[in-house]
Amino acid sequence: MLEQITSTQNSKIKFLSQLIEKSRVRKRENCFVIEGKREITLAIEGGYTLIQVFYCPDILPREEALALVKKENASLPLFEITSTVYKKVAYRDSTEGIIAIAQSKDNAINTLSFKNKTPLILIAESPEKPGNIGAILRTADAANIDAVIIANPKTDIYNPNIIRSSVGCIFTNHIATGSSEEIIHFLKQQNINIYGAALENAVNCYSIDYTKPSAIIVGTEATGLSDMWLQNTNKNVKIPMNGVIDSMNVSVAAGILIYEAKRQRNFEF
Amino acid sequence: MLEQITSTQNSKIKFLSQLIEKSRVRKRENCFVIEGKREITLAIEGGYTLIQVFYCPDILPREEALALVKKENASLPLFEITSTVYKKVAYRDSTEGIIAIAQSKDNAINTLSFKNKTPLILIAESPEKPGNIGAILRTADAANIDAVIIANPKTDIYNPNIIRSSVGCIFTNHIATGSSEEIIHFLKQQNINIYGAALENAVNCYSIDYTKPSAIIVGTEATGLSDMWLQNTNKNVKIPMNGVIDSMNVSVAAGILIYEAKRQRNFEF
Repeated sequence: MLEQITSTQNSKIKFLSQLIEKSRVRKRENCFVIEGKREITLAIEGGYTLIQVFYCPDILPREEALALVKKENASLPLFEITSTVYKKVAYRDSTEGIIAIAQSKDNAINTLSFKNKTPLILIAESPEKPGNIGAILRTADAANIDAVIIANPKTDIYNPNIIRSSVGCIFTNHIATGSSEEIIHFLKQQNINIYGAALENAVNCYSIDYTKPSAIIVGTEATGLSDMWLQNTNKNVKIPMNGVIDSMNVSVAAGILIYEAKRQRNFEF
Repeated sequence: MLEQITSTQNSKIKFLSQLIEKSRVRKRENCFVIEGKREITLAIEGGYTLIQVFYCPDILPREEALALVKKENASLPLFEITSTVYKKVAYRDSTEGIIAIAQSKDNAINTLSFKNKTPLILIAESPEKPGNIGAILRTADAANIDAVIIANPKTDIYNPNIIRSSVGCIFTNHIATGSSEEIIHFLKQQNINIYGAALENAVNCYSIDYTKPSAIIVGTEATGLSDMWLQNTNKNVKIPMNGVIDSMNVSVAAGILIYEAKRQRNFEF
């Protein structure tokens, strides 16, 4: 199946643009957009199902596009688009010539299960900046932790800026989202210790034994963790600081805590 | 001295805009722009000299503006500007009503000296994103390290986006800039061990003794450290990774390395 799209007014292209721009459309349609060869390959490897693929033959030859996406699904609809159409939907800097619509995964908290008997989990409460979420997902991939959970998300995780800033790590991590209440319930049920990054009523983060089942949770840079989390942690933990300002980027703080946990676990991945 | 400025075409306002927008003008004039109460206070405390101050009385009362900036210098020129003028020069989100021009410091590498006999230094080679530089400066402040050095900077450190993303940590750290050659010469002269964050020909970063005089250097996310650095390190060090993608945000990597060094030093600040 090959169809050529030459107009930016084409209904498929309009739908693609809406999926890129609007969280509400992604949610309603239960699908999202992936741009780039590497990202699409990672999504396929991560078990995502592609629904439609658009490629621009001026940038990516048809054979390459086919080789990239047809492995798993010979009947996948593949559309050829002109440079003009591609430029309308692509990120400004990108020149890879391929964009796909993929089905969203169900990231409900009860879909999480752990092979590891002493899981290590990172939770971010209502993270605001896609760049910080992306950096957190990169650290989580590198440290090969058991899951990343977004509590009370401010946007869906399939926001194109999150996908981009995660350099594809959105597809390599086990990710769940949910309300803080649901997540706390889940962690307690699984007997996972909860350590909240906080400045007040907190112990030195290096005094904790993270070799037991551990969930480390970081809050927003502006207001920190919500009361609901602070009241449900086993301990609140504080990174030692002695500067003038003592403010740390949230993804840096998460990285320091996760790597201290991994150090204690002798980097057994 | 009080002068009211009501036109965005005023020559002082045009100069202010140029200083905000153009690195070359900041360099030529040896001054830069600081916006916000907290940032201006930190700059004064950090030993910066203010040259001119602009405040918008609709947002910040004259008495508060005076109290903020006149402590050190009674003859400092203070200009009242209208909301329209303020909106032209202020960051979009800011509503603090005060902007100052300050004299740049000489950040040459040979201006650095250390009280600490075993200094801990963080170096970033040609960092690209102001957000990452800001995050690195925040970590450096929190860890209270002895200096941050920018090697082969791509922009001057007084870029407004760096000042903003550092939340003022640009004023609380000892900062130097220089060519990689100058910096390597300086470090060797001072007998400071150089540890380069790298993936190849590198030892586990946790195997290093950072209690000795140590400089940790991180490269760009795209290409890593340059050959000049790789050939002049005492050891190249690698953060253990075992993910699918194994790419880490540069400010996260710097944070993990600096805090491992601080842990070994028992957080003696």
